Amino acid sequence: MTAHPARRDRLRETVRAAGLDAALVTRLVNVRYLTGFTGSNGALLVGAGGADVLCTDGRYRTQAGQQAPDLPVVVERASAAALAARAGKDGVRRLGYESHDVTVDLYATLADRAEGAELVSLGQRVEGMRAVKDEDEIELLRQACAVADRALADLLAAGGVRAGRTEREVGRDLDGRMLELGAEAPSFDTIVAAGPESAIPHHRPTDRVLATGDLVKLDFGATCRGYHSDMTRTLVLGEPAGWQREVYDLVAAAQRAGREALAAGADVVAVDRAARAVIEAAGHGDDFGHGLGHGVGLEIHEAPAVSPLGAGTLADRMAVTVEPGVYLEGRGGVRIEDTLVVRPGGPDLLTTTTKDLVVL
Amino acid sequence: MTAHPARRDRLRETVRAAGLDAALVTRLVNVRYLTGFTGSNGALLVGAGGADVLCTDGRYRTQAGQQAPDLPVVVERASAAALAARAGKDGVRRLGYESHDVTVDLYATLADRAEGAELVSLGQRVEGMRAVKDEDEIELLRQACAVADRALADLLAAGGVRAGRTEREVGRDLDGRMLELGAEAPSFDTIVAAGPESAIPHHRPTDRVLATGDLVKLDFGATCRGYHSDMTRTLVLGEPAGWQREVYDLVAAAQRAGREALAAGADVVAVDRAARAVIEAAGHGDDFGHGLGHGVGLEIHEAPAVSPLGAGTLADRMAVTVEPGVYLEGRGGVRIEDTLVVRPGGPDLLTTTTKDLVVL
Repeated sequence: MTAHPARRDRLRETVRAAGLDAALVTRLVNVRYLTGFTGSNGALLVGAGGADVLCTDGRYRTQAGQQAPDLPVVVERASAAALAARAGKDGVRRLGYESHDVTVDLYATLADRAEGAELVSLGQRVEGMRAVKDEDEIELLRQACAVADRALADLLAAGGVRAGRTEREVGRDLDGRMLELGAEAPSFDTIVAAGPESAIPHHRPTDRVLATGDLVKLDFGATCRGYHSDMTRTLVLGEPAGWQREVYDLVAAAQRAGREALAAGADVVAVDRAARAVIEAAGHGDDFGHGLGHGVGLEIHEAPAVSPLGAGTLADRMAVTVEPGVYLEGRGGVRIEDTLVVRPGGPDLLTTTTKDLVVL
Repeated sequence: MTAHPARRDRLRETVRAAGLDAALVTRLVNVRYLTGFTGSNGALLVGAGGADVLCTDGRYRTQAGQQAPDLPVVVERASAAALAARAGKDGVRRLGYESHDVTVDLYATLADRAEGAELVSLGQRVEGMRAVKDEDEIELLRQACAVADRALADLLAAGGVRAGRTEREVGRDLDGRMLELGAEAPSFDTIVAAGPESAIPHHRPTDRVLATGDLVKLDFGATCRGYHSDMTRTLVLGEPAGWQREVYDLVAAAQRAGREALAAGADVVAVDRAARAVIEAAGHGDDFGHGLGHGVGLEIHEAPAVSPLGAGTLADRMAVTVEPGVYLEGRGGVRIEDTLVVRPGGPDLLTTTTKDLVVL
């Protein structure tokens, strides 16, 4: 990827604008975003005038050179402390750091090693940059979503969701198919929730046996080259009861309203509201107890939060989920979720599995 | 588990001894250790005079009640901040907190919400407690190790490690068997390293095809009810070459020396040395570039570090790995690793797979 130097240059601009001499990036996912390095120990120093440096320990010497060939690599176990010391020696006087990531203990070490440099919080600048994807990232998200779509299609074609199987068996089957199709890992612990369990928003698969008449909620995703997909579909085993179809149609309508509200400049609270209003109008407002969606990328949950508790507006090339649900305790629940990218002509739908009610 | 109140009482003693009125535990694995609660958002307040409280958000209300039935549960999204506020209101004047876990941003929030209470670092007291296992924990570790032993035995019996298969296929097969045998997950990303790749200490499985003459290094473990096992075995495909057997015998001798050095009161650096001296005497000191072992429990790597960089002595009921290796770049490497528990009569070996060289 050639995107990394450009990303560091964008960060460099905000570093300069904030009157900092350098920024020390310690949050690993942010280091990955800015360098391509994926090891479990690393820190990055971005200088206001250039001269960026990556630091990691000996285990990752070769890997760091391969993944970040455009960066000098310093090998030191205490990576953040080593870069703080380097900044201090280089005469940095105002050093940005990630106050949402650095612990109190690490802060004391950095302050000590940076020799007189003042530590200034960078805030979540890198996370803010990450919320808007570049085209390379969108392509990776599209691949991750395609793997999940295909895995579900194969699972259904093979009769993998059927009465008599357990939630756990279905989940493992789906996970195995994503891995076979090239996913590095599932995006998170796959949710398979059948019958009354489908009313639990974040149910973990159990040995419960699927039965005719069950709603079956599948919430899952694939991670490909670090990028996560996220999709939920709710199926029904056998002819749906009236209440099942009613709830399904309601959630589908709310989900459509949420998708249609995605646009650059839209307030995230208003997007949530667009979907929530549909559910409230049907008298089920209390049965939808979570936010409408979230950003997705190198993390499964990242900025922006599309929820009543969120803040700010959407921008072009933000990747978000839209996932309303209605959960009826003791009976069952429906959630429908897509991953989409905000675009000028309307959102780009990355998860393409049908949202018609699938009856098995 | 009835162990949790006793664990909190032990922490309470050290809280009192440090002159604190309460301790705020925020590191999730420590919250789990002290309460049994496994959710992804939670904090625990342990009062010097009792009155412990668990806090989590609405998603985990039911789960918290089930997993920690002996504790009152406060439901609040900002769990640590809510408990700091509660401590402040209850008149706590000196509040312990985990300075190795709390970020600079969270610290500012806690100081604000705790209304005049002084925040005092607890250090890694809970991690220190966790290093010494109780018998319930040792039983869970034994089960986790048994799952890994059994999975490897089944894999070998099924001919799963053979020329023509890829590292990735072998890894997935092994992971699948651990899951079938009841593991919640692998303890970490399973390492399968064949031929020259076996010389890379933490190689990740690739599409490399296993071939006759290869050393095949398998480093893996099972997680059962939160407890991790950790084991490495190195096999050979076909009759071993002279150098392969030589390196194998050397590592096996070093590993034996390391195991035999495990005893209450032994300095961790001396234990490392006992094994390392064997490898150095054979002229391979530079080919063993990592520590001898580490504690294992609710985390795959935890206190104590059994390494030249470690400090302190072993105690009865500490669970540690012993895992020397000799890595010859471009040719191959051997590592042999067990998980053991320090006991008065000599260490209790939890990973029971043979350490004789297995020729496939």
